[in-house]
Amino acid sequence: MRRRELLAAPMTLMATPSNTFGVKALAFDVFGTVVDWRGSIIREGTNWGKTKGLQLDWEKFADAWRAGYGPAMDRVRTGTLPWMKIDALHRLILDDLLKEFNIAGLTENEKDRWNRVWHRLTPWPDAIPGLTRLKKAYVISTLSNGNVSLLVNMAKSAGLPWDTVLSAELFHHYKPDREVYLGAADLLGCKPAELMMVAAHTGDLQGARACGLRTAFVSRPLEYGRNGKSDSAEGGSYDIIARNFIELAAKLV
Amino acid sequence: MRRRELLAAPMTLMATPSNTFGVKALAFDVFGTVVDWRGSIIREGTNWGKTKGLQLDWEKFADAWRAGYGPAMDRVRTGTLPWMKIDALHRLILDDLLKEFNIAGLTENEKDRWNRVWHRLTPWPDAIPGLTRLKKAYVISTLSNGNVSLLVNMAKSAGLPWDTVLSAELFHHYKPDREVYLGAADLLGCKPAELMMVAAHTGDLQGARACGLRTAFVSRPLEYGRNGKSDSAEGGSYDIIARNFIELAAKLV
Repeated sequence: MRRRELLAAPMTLMATPSNTFGVKALAFDVFGTVVDWRGSIIREGTNWGKTKGLQLDWEKFADAWRAGYGPAMDRVRTGTLPWMKIDALHRLILDDLLKEFNIAGLTENEKDRWNRVWHRLTPWPDAIPGLTRLKKAYVISTLSNGNVSLLVNMAKSAGLPWDTVLSAELFHHYKPDREVYLGAADLLGCKPAELMMVAAHTGDLQGARACGLRTAFVSRPLEYGRNGKSDSAEGGSYDIIARNFIELAAKLV
Repeated sequence: MRRRELLAAPMTLMATPSNTFGVKALAFDVFGTVVDWRGSIIREGTNWGKTKGLQLDWEKFADAWRAGYGPAMDRVRTGTLPWMKIDALHRLILDDLLKEFNIAGLTENEKDRWNRVWHRLTPWPDAIPGLTRLKKAYVISTLSNGNVSLLVNMAKSAGLPWDTVLSAELFHHYKPDREVYLGAADLLGCKPAELMMVAAHTGDLQGARACGLRTAFVSRPLEYGRNGKSDSAEGGSYDIIARNFIELAAKLV
């Protein structure tokens, strides 16, 4: 629904979408798509390391932490671990990494605070301007494997203007399980085709598409750093491909 | 946490609440507490009635619709009805009221649009200024029996600045069932005592308090109209009693 129509007919809000795709709401992947997890962890780690006298390769540390994430979720998915919030999975991985990187002597409070660096990740520069524009025409929500409090705290510290926060936590299933995409559409009062998943990751968008959602691929070439390999839109099938959230807004509003 | 501290130490966001009550987040009842359901329905009904040539007592209609709400939730609570969103319960009640008030000849589209008047309720005049002030120091969320899409659409049409939208729908239990209060605290990453329930209704606050939440009673003397009987704080036990959201913010920020 375009802004002009919203202003002219507020009482039909959400009832008759008029954009090309028939989309009423946008659901955003967060880690990597909205926020730069790698740069944020390296920056905060470097600063923290200086005050604590920790000498280590924070790029390697960030990459190792993230690398543990998929396998940890798989352990939940296969039932090896019971349902756990990402905060708890991040902590399991962190405890291993502290040994691997020879970091000793941290208090429980310091470990907990560093584990919650994921609540303080900072957005890519185009994220807030793009979301602010999209919010005028659509319901905009997270749809992340991050837990609700992580996403709420992140939105508050970074100023992300979500209409609401949806998380895998609400369904006790991690993306790309179907329950997450279909559950989000149901909560938002949308048919699957009225909800568009926005992500920088092909697996997430394939999962969404298999459930009947619309998809938008946004490339984040620096997600894994200058030498890292980020996902590419090539070979995939998406309703929209955009280089950033400003371009996404230009294509949707 | 006060705003000055937030600005001075963003990295400790949410970690060390410093207000008198140790509260990190506020959960708001919505119908009656944040928005004037009765006035909104009467206003929209009167306008709609003029265009449709419907002659009826919209005050009586609004009161009857709301009166069906508690009994309908009880039917879900006792298992007479399966889990249903409030949208569906409102529609069940509406279908009975259309007969009772002799309103015939509406299309399905008209019935659906009128049923969703609950998505378009307008806030009490102090609600947005008070919430805006509280948002600077706390996570602010809905905790309503209204379904998620109802609450998201309402926030968008009314400009309510929630950090996130929590609903009984997420727990498949209606307030005052314990699952709702304890589930909200868990999702927000709070101990029960770190979450304060704000409501104009004694039953809601008693339910919250029994789960260990902090409570704030906000009086809404006009909830049921000039001649209606609204809940009073007298005889109850609350951490805060306030006459409106401005006073609530003055006591908490």
